[in-house]
Amino acid sequence: MYYLKNDYSEGCHPDILAALTKTNLEATTGYGLDEYCQSAAEQIKKVFSCPDADVHFLVGGTQANFTMISHALRPYEAVVTVSTGHIGVHETGAVEATGHEVLTFPSSDGKVHTWMIEQALTENPDEHTVEPAMVYLSNATEIGTVYTRRELEEISDCCKAHGLYLYLDGARLGTALTSSQSDLKPEDLPRLTDAFYIGGTKNGALFGEAMVIVNDGLKRHFRMSIKQKGGMLAKGRLLGVQFGELFRDGLWFRLAEHANAQAQALQKGLKEKGVPLMVDSPSNQIFPIFPDTQVEELSKDFAFEIWGKADESHTIIRLVTSWATKPQVVDAFLKAL
Amino acid sequence: MYYLKNDYSEGCHPDILAALTKTNLEATTGYGLDEYCQSAAEQIKKVFSCPDADVHFLVGGTQANFTMISHALRPYEAVVTVSTGHIGVHETGAVEATGHEVLTFPSSDGKVHTWMIEQALTENPDEHTVEPAMVYLSNATEIGTVYTRRELEEISDCCKAHGLYLYLDGARLGTALTSSQSDLKPEDLPRLTDAFYIGGTKNGALFGEAMVIVNDGLKRHFRMSIKQKGGMLAKGRLLGVQFGELFRDGLWFRLAEHANAQAQALQKGLKEKGVPLMVDSPSNQIFPIFPDTQVEELSKDFAFEIWGKADESHTIIRLVTSWATKPQVVDAFLKAL
Amino acid sequence: MYYLKNDYSEGCHPDILAALTKTNLEATTGYGLDEYCQSAAEQIKKVFSCPDADVHFLVGGTQANFTMISHALRPYEAVVTVSTGHIGVHETGAVEATGHEVLTFPSSDGKVHTWMIEQALTENPDEHTVEPAMVYLSNATEIGTVYTRRELEEISDCCKAHGLYLYLDGARLGTALTSSQSDLKPEDLPRLTDAFYIGGTKNGALFGEAMVIVNDGLKRHFRMSIKQKGGMLAKGRLLGVQFGELFRDGLWFRLAEHANAQAQALQKGLKEKGVPLMVDSPSNQIFPIFPDTQVEELSKDFAFEIWGKADESHTIIRLVTSWATKPQVVDAFLKAL
Amino acid sequence: MYYLKNDYSEGCHPDILAALTKTNLEATTGYGLDEYCQSAAEQIKKVFSCPDADVHFLVGGTQANFTMISHALRPYEAVVTVSTGHIGVHETGAVEATGHEVLTFPSSDGKVHTWMIEQALTENPDEHTVEPAMVYLSNATEIGTVYTRRELEEISDCCKAHGLYLYLDGARLGTALTSSQSDLKPEDLPRLTDAFYIGGTKNGALFGEAMVIVNDGLKRHFRMSIKQKGGMLAKGRLLGVQFGELFRDGLWFRLAEHANAQAQALQKGLKEKGVPLMVDSPSNQIFPIFPDTQVEELSKDFAFEIWGKADESHTIIRLVTSWATKPQVVDAFLKAL
Repeated sequence: MYYLKNDYSEGCHPDILAALTKTNLEATTGYGLDEYCQSAAEQIKKVFSCPDADVHFLVGGTQANFTMISHALRPYEAVVTVSTGHIGVHETGAVEATGHEVLTFPSSDGKVHTWMIEQALTENPDEHTVEPAMVYLSNATEIGTVYTRRELEEISDCCKAHGLYLYLDGARLGTALTSSQSDLKPEDLPRLTDAFYIGGTKNGALFGEAMVIVNDGLKRHFRMSIKQKGGMLAKGRLLGVQFGELFRDGLWFRLAEHANAQAQALQKGLKEKGVPLMVDSPSNQIFPIFPDTQVEELSKDFAFEIWGKADESHTIIRLVTSWATKPQVVDAFLKAL
Repeated sequence: MYYLKNDYSEGCHPDILAALTKTNLEATTGYGLDEYCQSAAEQIKKVFSCPDADVHFLVGGTQANFTMISHALRPYEAVVTVSTGHIGVHETGAVEATGHEVLTFPSSDGKVHTWMIEQALTENPDEHTVEPAMVYLSNATEIGTVYTRRELEEISDCCKAHGLYLYLDGARLGTALTSSQSDLKPEDLPRLTDAFYIGGTKNGALFGEAMVIVNDGLKRHFRMSIKQKGGMLAKGRLLGVQFGELFRDGLWFRLAEHANAQAQALQKGLKEKGVPLMVDSPSNQIFPIFPDTQVEELSKDFAFEIWGKADESHTIIRLVTSWATKPQVVDAFLKAL
Repeated sequence: MYYLKNDYSEGCHPDILAALTKTNLEATTGYGLDEYCQSAAEQIKKVFSCPDADVHFLVGGTQANFTMISHALRPYEAVVTVSTGHIGVHETGAVEATGHEVLTFPSSDGKVHTWMIEQALTENPDEHTVEPAMVYLSNATEIGTVYTRRELEEISDCCKAHGLYLYLDGARLGTALTSSQSDLKPEDLPRLTDAFYIGGTKNGALFGEAMVIVNDGLKRHFRMSIKQKGGMLAKGRLLGVQFGELFRDGLWFRLAEHANAQAQALQKGLKEKGVPLMVDSPSNQIFPIFPDTQVEELSKDFAFEIWGKADESHTIIRLVTSWATKPQVVDAFLKAL
Repeated sequence: MYYLKNDYSEGCHPDILAALTKTNLEATTGYGLDEYCQSAAEQIKKVFSCPDADVHFLVGGTQANFTMISHALRPYEAVVTVSTGHIGVHETGAVEATGHEVLTFPSSDGKVHTWMIEQALTENPDEHTVEPAMVYLSNATEIGTVYTRRELEEISDCCKAHGLYLYLDGARLGTALTSSQSDLKPEDLPRLTDAFYIGGTKNGALFGEAMVIVNDGLKRHFRMSIKQKGGMLAKGRLLGVQFGELFRDGLWFRLAEHANAQAQALQKGLKEKGVPLMVDSPSNQIFPIFPDTQVEELSKDFAFEIWGKADESHTIIRLVTSWATKPQVVDAFLKAL
């Protein structure tokens, strides 16, 4: 069975495992207050050019999202995002469980656009409606598209004009920043957002996400929110060691580049074979459309996700490559068609 | 610096690291639906003699606690526990954050007693008060004491008589079950509780707790609660691999025995030197009382936690041993006195 | 200024005020445990043919809705309703504040249809998504339409088939049941729903809604939910006295008939004058479309609500009649056109 | 049956009922934005010497409490109060249901003392514990005692020194301010607290509490919190009309004076007869201790509340007088002894 199901099927990059092994029997203080976490935070602040930011390490993405959202918002405040936004559809109501409404808007390219923010404000004008107070977006998006610098600037300006926070879910930030279609630089993120997280789980770590808080107003007591929401790892240094490896000399970028390269080779091959695509994706998630019978056939040898129906007799599938995907898997898939 | 600060200072037992390394590049399905998790669950059900239980793996203890409590209770229901109960004092209001009151009672031995349950019910009789619906207890307790089978049976009977759930926090269940003062057997836990979790973090794993759900009424959709509360690990098999090692041939018990042996050697030494103790602890946490000046002196070479003031000029400290504590550390501490 | 703004602009029907005055200095037990509440509950159970139902009195509609929803659902469960549903848009995220997601579907006639329930289930299939567990609908709807018996039966059957609760918001149930287009009878409500509330505030009471719980599984400890959510009135008998008057000899129905008659006279007049309508409403809310300039002109003498833009130069307004609306107001409005 | 059970057994003062009757058929805008509410707010700001405060009207006390507490606090923040505090014991966990822990301290006089605040801060020092952020106190307290100006100043100073809000529950503020043992003036309340509410329900209104927000930081969007938590009355002017009557020319003070006078006559009589008291109460709640048999006897003719056991054979009862209690009831009780 070849795996194209997701970017978290394998464990971690061997360098990370080596670092974990090397430090395994050291005794450190717990809960992320150790030197490995401090050092990894410094590296991240350097790479993303935000010396004044606060960096915290959390175990997973859903946790990172609702911890930040509930930390930032007052009870009557809501988050604006697209209908496909991860917090809206794939987190079992985790944001609502902390008391906040998620206002969603359909988006054919999977991206937030400023008209959504304007409409959210217009539709929620008074004390009988919620107060839109934060924009949530994912980069890369849930359908593989990526934001250009200009797009993110427009959203950032709109948020600032209306007093909303801009929060970026970077579960797949690596593949976004290294996408050939992206002109975003790491230093743009702290400039344009109030907070963002850098994904480790889907880019070569065993687990872990690094939350970067840029807005001073969001920094206070974030560790209390992490603890209360269950995201404070006792052996917190495990996160520091992993992110230390990822950002010591660019491993995080190289791993994402590899995933993108495999996905783009796959997409190029699909296009050459005339396979229709739900979306032209510039990152590591590819969405081809096949006849139902072919999907069934392919599923015998390849693990992938069913995304939905394209029409009566065709199905959209999702193929995801990772830092660990071997070129042979791409070849095998294309050959199997 | 010698570490006697807690039982999660080091990484994991070498066998566990070896298993993680060996399986690192395998691709599996995510979120704990892989074969490693299934196999570890089977081992646990065998060791604890509960073939019909559901076993789930979560990342940490605070998360395990509020996930189970919020899963089990209706909005107006409350949990009964002791004043030193972990959920009451060291989880940043995590249970209240899910909407539930924690009713606490002072307890000199750190254990729940049936009078507390009776009193909670008497004090909360009608619709103007909460409904006590669950008893939470830790074994070993937060001050190192352990429940006898008879004590746990009495609490279990009292819970059943009044229709309350009994939930056991087993962050340190290993040291409780292997304590020389404990006559509890693994098979007693599913017999006497509705749910309990088996601690991995504090007993040799990198991280991870295994939730065992015995009561059929609590089984439905627990995975939804795990996901919503942020405890569902993408690379869930990491937990399965670790618990597989811990329960394959008794490693979990041997590690706890080691921790207890070191702690008991330490406590015996302290007694022989006439050092007073806050409590006579039969497990891996020891609470000696020293003059403030001596505490300051000791803290130069040893890392430990300040527990509180005994009187004007004396301090209670907490010394914790782990699966990784070397006998030399115990010797060094006793020699330093 | 003539009021066509809503059905809660005036106080209460004089008979109700007389009853409150007559009983004002009687001393009774508090919190709705008095004889007036008991007697009113009995009358309601008789009128709606549900001798085994539980009847509770709450102060207002938003409160009634989130109290029932949070009482009924587990943390990961969600409510299905239309995009215009009151809980989705006009309650400041009150349901989300209790932890539950509201799944909404656009509906041109303001009514829930079974395909929405099916789609909600299809789109939320596993532990990464919420569990649709209740359908919420308003009758009359927020745009004045009413359910036929057949429509409600289909929804009820669909709910039963899939194990969802059906909860009906009856803020305007009086005008629905007395609408000329409705074939629903009071006895259909307990037959087809798990719980529903009977609106007093918008039908002649000073305030108050009567929650009728039909499903035995929802009855337990509902008074605890009322108290916890702030809906338990100290002088609870005020609610009993009012509902006693409303249901003693049909006042509640007569008041709704009056409101409908005024609204239908108004709608007939508008149609005769060729004024376009957003929807052909059979109850007490009418939605004519006027040129913006005319809306401005009308607003000098009439109080009404702006519903939204119909196009660049036309506006939809909402005209609401109540138990207290005098025929002269309708005449004045039609004359003013 | 003579009623000494509570101060909300009867309806409202006749002047209030007359005002409600007189305005009954007027049509006004809803949700408390009418002129009656505005005018009542102005009167309150004048009487309490706080021209810059915001005044909002809510239906009941539990609602007022959790609405303000959840409005003011961040998710990890907690409230400090006494063990007998209304929010801690008689509101069915309403504060916890909004996500916040209530830290309680035993208090023999029912009052908060500064050592409790200090201890709460000491016991909750870091991210593993909640952050004490508000002090909640009731005046008069739940056992009838009242704060002196000096006591309230000390608490206020302590709160300011540590950055906590001070919130005062004034369900029985009338009887506190008119107690012979109180030197507090209305103008002290906005000077010493961040917010307080003025009780109407227990002092002559049908229902209603007036929330006065002094601290600018708490003013923003409080109406959104009221709406979300279910406290926004559609016919909001009912509250404005009532508080308008209460504060037009001192009715609120006179009603409280009457209640106090009856209670003090009762307490004096009890003392003269040598009946022991749980507490010497200077307001309208009296707590005599009787042999169990006498309690049973008295309950045949008098309605009162059982407070608790004094010892094996004696019971503490609570006798409450109201604005409507007739001197004959006091006489009858004393005669019955």
